[in-house]
Amino acid sequence: MKTQYYTATSLDGFIATEDDSLEWLFPLGDVNDTSYPGFIAQVGALAMGSATYEWMLRHALGGEDPSVAAWPYTQPTWVFTKRVLPRVAGANLHFVQGDVAPVHAAMCAAAAGRHVWIVGGGDLAGQFHDAGLLDELILQVGSVTLGRGKPLFPRRLAPGDLRLQSVRQVGTGFAELRYEVVKGA
Amino acid sequence: MKTQYYTATSLDGFIATEDDSLEWLFPLGDVNDTSYPGFIAQVGALAMGSATYEWMLRHALGGEDPSVAAWPYTQPTWVFTKRVLPRVAGANLHFVQGDVAPVHAAMCAAAAGRHVWIVGGGDLAGQFHDAGLLDELILQVGSVTLGRGKPLFPRRLAPGDLRLQSVRQVGTGFAELRYEVVKGA
Repeated sequence: MKTQYYTATSLDGFIATEDDSLEWLFPLGDVNDTSYPGFIAQVGALAMGSATYEWMLRHALGGEDPSVAAWPYTQPTWVFTKRVLPRVAGANLHFVQGDVAPVHAAMCAAAAGRHVWIVGGGDLAGQFHDAGLLDELILQVGSVTLGRGKPLFPRRLAPGDLRLQSVRQVGTGFAELRYEVVKGA
Repeated sequence: MKTQYYTATSLDGFIATEDDSLEWLFPLGDVNDTSYPGFIAQVGALAMGSATYEWMLRHALGGEDPSVAAWPYTQPTWVFTKRVLPRVAGANLHFVQGDVAPVHAAMCAAAAGRHVWIVGGGDLAGQFHDAGLLDELILQVGSVTLGRGKPLFPRRLAPGDLRLQSVRQVGTGFAELRYEVVKGA
């Protein structure tokens, strides 16, 4: 099993606008043309930060009452938050905070051999990397620039820390880049 | 002929560190494995900002006295600067400032059917785009993140403004992404 940061990003390295909008993302292509369907089938546990979870509440659930709305993931999901957030009915959610290492251990146990997906944001993915727990970056690089916004990965990864594994074009809207994170580099 | 912004960038959208270093770039691969040799052969004129020119003075010329050092380009080069900068002996240099449009017209005339290369930085490429003069982005996306630095392209290009034309893997250190800039999008 691997711990994977799978996300879409603008060409200039932002995963969302400053106000956490993803409006730029959806016109770029059909998610079913990307690797996402195959990817999500191999995921056994998810981690996300509070901004990502709140985006889900606002958009993925269509603004419905979270106590009745459908959650898109069957896998258990760990939400890192220092605040109390509404709980989506029927979702397998764990609200946690603090060090990622013990949470990662619990996620791996739950994933039972399938992969752990760090949904975002960038700093949460960075925290998993800081703890030596990140194995792959899988990026859907969208054919847009945002100029400013929420950073993809607010860390320095030097030459040798990442190895490009594959590139793939998805229409004119996405380039999919897969990287191995080199441990102990 | 096309006006092309050809540059290397980190995965998180920086073309240089905050202090204009490119030290991260050179370990990532051999420039001769990239499209650069074929690209430069088709270039008839270059434009660069003062920071790029000063980087050339410091590094590409090996810190030598610019009055005697060799310049790597045979093509005429327009340097946008508000300051008086040392002139490299034997280089075909035009120091200019202000609007890019009349400079672009002079570059096109000099290029005589070959392409115009916007070397950088990002804001200069943005100025050519603002004037409707940019045709292509050709990016060597390096397998590094810098966290902060000089931005690749400090503009907003919305869905439809860019069309991904091709992707190519260059070893484990670079993904080459080519984009058409859609005019009047």
